[in-house]
Order: sequence, then structure tokens, then C-alpha cells
Amino acid sequence: MRTIQWNAENSTVRMIDQTLLPVEYREIECENLAQLCEAIKSLRVRGAPALAAAGAYGIALASKLSSANDMESLLEDLKNAARIILATRPTAINLGWGVHRVIKAVSEAYDTAGIRDIALSEAQAIADEDVQINKTLGKHGASLLEDGDTVMTHCNAGRLACVDWGTALGVVRSAVEQGKDINVIACETRPLNQGGRLTTWELMQDNIPVKLISDSMSGYVMRHELVDKVIVGADRVTEDAVFNKIGTYNHAIVAMEHEIPFYVAAPASTFDFKGWEGSVKIEERDPDELRYMQGVQIAPEDVPVINPAFDSTPMEYIEAIITEKGIFRPPFLIDEVRT
Amino acid sequence: MRTIQWNAENSTVRMIDQTLLPVEYREIECENLAQLCEAIKSLRVRGAPALAAAGAYGIALASKLSSANDMESLLEDLKNAARIILATRPTAINLGWGVHRVIKAVSEAYDTAGIRDIALSEAQAIADEDVQINKTLGKHGASLLEDGDTVMTHCNAGRLACVDWGTALGVVRSAVEQGKDINVIACETRPLNQGGRLTTWELMQDNIPVKLISDSMSGYVMRHELVDKVIVGADRVTEDAVFNKIGTYNHAIVAMEHEIPFYVAAPASTFDFKGWEGSVKIEERDPDELRYMQGVQIAPEDVPVINPAFDSTPMEYIEAIITEKGIFRPPFLIDEVRT
Repeated sequence: MRTIQWNAENSTVRMIDQTLLPVEYREIECENLAQLCEAIKSLRVRGAPALAAAGAYGIALASKLSSANDMESLLEDLKNAARIILATRPTAINLGWGVHRVIKAVSEAYDTAGIRDIALSEAQAIADEDVQINKTLGKHGASLLEDGDTVMTHCNAGRLACVDWGTALGVVRSAVEQGKDINVIACETRPLNQGGRLTTWELMQDNIPVKLISDSMSGYVMRHELVDKVIVGADRVTEDAVFNKIGTYNHAIVAMEHEIPFYVAAPASTFDFKGWEGSVKIEERDPDELRYMQGVQIAPEDVPVINPAFDSTPMEYIEAIITEKGIFRPPFLIDEVRT
Repeated sequence: MRTIQWNAENSTVRMIDQTLLPVEYREIECENLAQLCEAIKSLRVRGAPALAAAGAYGIALASKLSSANDMESLLEDLKNAARIILATRPTAINLGWGVHRVIKAVSEAYDTAGIRDIALSEAQAIADEDVQINKTLGKHGASLLEDGDTVMTHCNAGRLACVDWGTALGVVRSAVEQGKDINVIACETRPLNQGGRLTTWELMQDNIPVKLISDSMSGYVMRHELVDKVIVGADRVTEDAVFNKIGTYNHAIVAMEHEIPFYVAAPASTFDFKGWEGSVKIEERDPDELRYMQGVQIAPEDVPVINPAFDSTPMEYIEAIITEKGIFRPPFLIDEVRT
């Protein structure tokens, strides 16, 4: 089961409900746009690549459900659907990218049946390409891992963030597929605990040995020589820095202090060819994320909070960036990734 | 109200129940040894200096409650009480130190009334000395803080860990008392969240401005120039390293990378004159601390966990150690602290 996929039998979008993990594994079927939008909004599906597929499948779903029998009405219905989907998470760039790619593709159709066929096949292509990119990226990255390595990772750059395979965890999976013994140390990743909830769960599902630590233990495990390499994902890569889940920067500094290579696994689509560290505004998230944990109060209810969604790690801390186009070692010209 | 104190009116030990903070402030009265032991075991009172007072008051309480009317029986009752108290937290060195200091003091008594008087006055002396030491330490440390400084701290080295005033937070309080504007950034301190629950609470009580971050955000706040100094407490100081709550080492490395001074506030009683980094065994705590949060499951129930109680920070990361005997800058001879 992919994180998200088309169920041809019922013409529905099927996904793993990530809000219930790791306590419960449940697959849900989105039969209409309202259900899909609720799933995106509630983070039942999350992670940039998975959201691209969710957006794309949303347009395919809308095309199946529309009763329009002329092209103009059908295209109007799809544009409405696009607006509704985009409103669920307005800052999720990949969601919009998936939606718009399908909308653009259907403009080539000659009739309503063509629109419906192309919408689905384009959404399928987006999902399949994501898996293919991750597998290629994983194979490149696996060449950096040796039999017996322990890899520390942060957050969830795994198959649950993608359609399948994963980026940072895709590298681990590819190395395991090559017959290498790889152990993983997963950092909990406060405040939303994607490492503790999702990375641990998906690796245990695949029987890849994993141990959980709190984010503050990365120095301890490195000083005790329990880590050979660090691999994390990325939300955005500029010429001078890598933006990723808050906490990544700490691990990068601590890894360099222990002379442990720090790798970033990121598809070429993550590269921002025009941006630089100072040009990216870091979003502040809801302070209640640090005051409550699944509804339980864990800090004074009115304590002021600093809660950036991500941080930036300057390129000098990074040993290499693993992409589907190969491995890039800083300093590199960002345009090399484009070609 | 001190963290723990003798209630002369009822001959009881009164304390702040720290397990309920920050959701509820409640003072509890321990009327007998069983209640006191339950409070120690359940961490209603915690922190090395506060435990020394708790142990000492426990013997005073036992002396009041004993019906013995000859010295031999009364001393026997106190030795039994000592055994019962020590069994609550066998690895808490300060608990034993407080108990034994009172037991030793009462051996100077001439009659049962003398034993009872000395037990209480020695316990009071232990509590009062703790406050005095922290105030002296705080005054020394305050000389390092400038008006307008923001101090980052980890865990709770505050008045709730002591009888009053605190060590790391005692330095902040002394600086504020001198009229300096000091802001604090409190790191949450996973997995038991003493920073999020207790440090925030006690500073808010004193109207000292505090902001909460997750442990993984220390690099972010330093890179954004939001921190002037770091001050933490210590569980043990050897010639070559400082042992403190897990996560301290990460902050020390990250602070050095940003050229931010990293201070340790620790009374001379924390110094281990014979030990060195490699000689101290770091206790592994219950893995469920990372799998559950106040009863709520936050990771797979069977995920393997690494959960060291503390870490060691080599002396080269430390700008100075603040004690009641003055400020010591590494490299220093540990024997200088003794004299």
C-alpha cells in the first residue's frame, strides 16, 4: 500500500491515515472532494511529495464525480475543485504544483471523456514519478552507506511523506535492498513528533532496526560513537543553505563537531534556484504546539513560545546533497542540479 | 513559600506538589513518613538540593512521631526511618547526604528531647544553608550578566529544584534583584519536560520574562541572535567534564559554534574531586518516557529507545563554572574549589 493511491474499483482516493499512527493503522477512502480536503487539512496525508499526489488525485476525483457533459462545464468544475483543494493548505507549494499540473494536462483533451482520462493518468504519472525519483535518489545515496552503518535521521523523510520509498529513508531502504545491514536512530522531532510517530513506525514495518531518541540526545549518541552518518530530508535547498524541519541545524553542527558526515536527501524539485538563506521567511507555527501534546497540557497555558516550523543549515555543514540526478558536494553551482 | 519547609504549627513537612505544575499549584502536607516517602518517590519533590532537605526533614518528622521515651529506642526508630527514606530513590546522593547529616548530628544529643531538637534544627540548617549558598552563587553569577541580556537555560535549575532561589535561575534572580532586565529562553527538556513545566512556571510567578522553545530550537535562536548567554545547572562536575540533564552537551556545542558563553551554575557540593568523565556511569531511564507522555502514547509501544538521564560536556566547551566560592574558569584545578 502506497501512502496515497487511486482505487480504480470504486473511483476513490485511498490513503493511510497518518494522524492515527503509530497507535492504529487505518486506510481511509475519500469518496468525494470534501473528504479529501478534510484529510489534507487534518494532516491525515502530509509531506510535500505526498501532497502533490493528493492534489492531483483530487482533480481526478472531481472529474469522475462531475455530472457535466460538455467540456466547458467540466473544466469549470475542475477549476472550482482546484480552488477548494488549494484553500486547504495555502502554503503547501507541492499541493498546488500537483493540482496545476493536472489542470494544465487536461487542457489538451478533445472531449469530456478525454478530460477524465487525462486527469487520472496525469495524477497517476505524478505519483509514479515520485516513486521513481525516490528510488533513483535512493540508489545514488546507498553508495554512500557501508554495511553495518548506523544512520541518524530527523523528522520523517520517509515513504509516509512521499507516495512511496521516501528520500532520507529511501536511501536507507535502497542500501538494505543491496544487502547492507543498516541501523537507524530516529530523532523524535519536537514539537509534532514525526520522528517518534512515523519514522519509527515505517521502519519497524519494514523490519529495519530503529531506535528512538529525543532530539537533545544527538550529541550523546555521537559522542558514544553510535552514529556513522546523518541523513535528513529538505523542504527547500538554496545556493547557500538547506531548509528543513526545526532541529536539523542543531544536528548538523553537532555532527560536524564529531566529524560525522551530514547528508541531505532531496529531489531536484526541492531546489530553489533563485533564493538564498536570507530571502526565505521562516513560518512561525501555533504556540499551542509546545503547550499541549495531543490535548494534554505540558506547559503554562499562557507561556510565550518561539515555534519556527523549520531552520536553515548553511552549506558548509553539509557533506553532500543526494538527488535523483546524482550526488552534489558543496560548494556546487546550484545550476548544475537543474541540468 | 519554599519548595519544601517545616510547618512548625502542625509538625509536618510542607511542599509544593511539582507533579501537578504547571496545570495546578498545590501545597501538600506530609504528616507521616509514608506520605513523605510517597512524595519523594512520585517526584512531588525533586532536584538534588531539595531532596537533601526532604531527607533531613524526614528524620526530623520521624523523631517527632516516634513514641520512644529512651534514647536507644528513639535512635533505633530514626535509623529505621533513614532506611525507609533512602529506599525511595536509592541513586539520589543528596537525599542520603541530608539523612546522614541529621543522623550524625543527633548522636551528639544527651536526651530524647535533645535528639528531637537537634534533628529539626539540623534539617532547618540544611535547608537554610541551601538558600544561602544559592544566593551567594547567584550574586557571583550576576556579575556576568549585563542589563538587557537574554539567558538560555535547560531543564530546571531553579528554586523548584532547590529549597529556594535556584542555581542557574538563582543567577538570573540575583541579576534581576540588582535591577538588570533579564529575559530567559527555557528549553523544554525532553523527555520529562522540566523546562517546559517548571522553569517557565517559576519564572512567570516571579514576573521574569520567559519564552519556551523545544530543545531542538537552540541553534535557531542563537543563529537569529536571540541569546546572549547560556546558563545551566549540573548534577556532577569532574576535573574534565560537567554532567547535567541530557541535552546540555548539544546546547554547549551549538553555543560555542555561535561564540555564545556557556556557563554552569553549581554549588561546590556538586564537585566530584576524584572522578573524571570516563569514570561516571550514565544511568539509562525507562524507555516508556519516550513512548508515552502523561499517559498518551506518542511512539510505537515496542520501539527500542536510548534514554540516558544525563550527558557529559567536556570542560573545553564551558566558559566558567559559577559556585558559591566564586567563578572558576577552565582549565582550573578542581582542588581550588575545595578550599
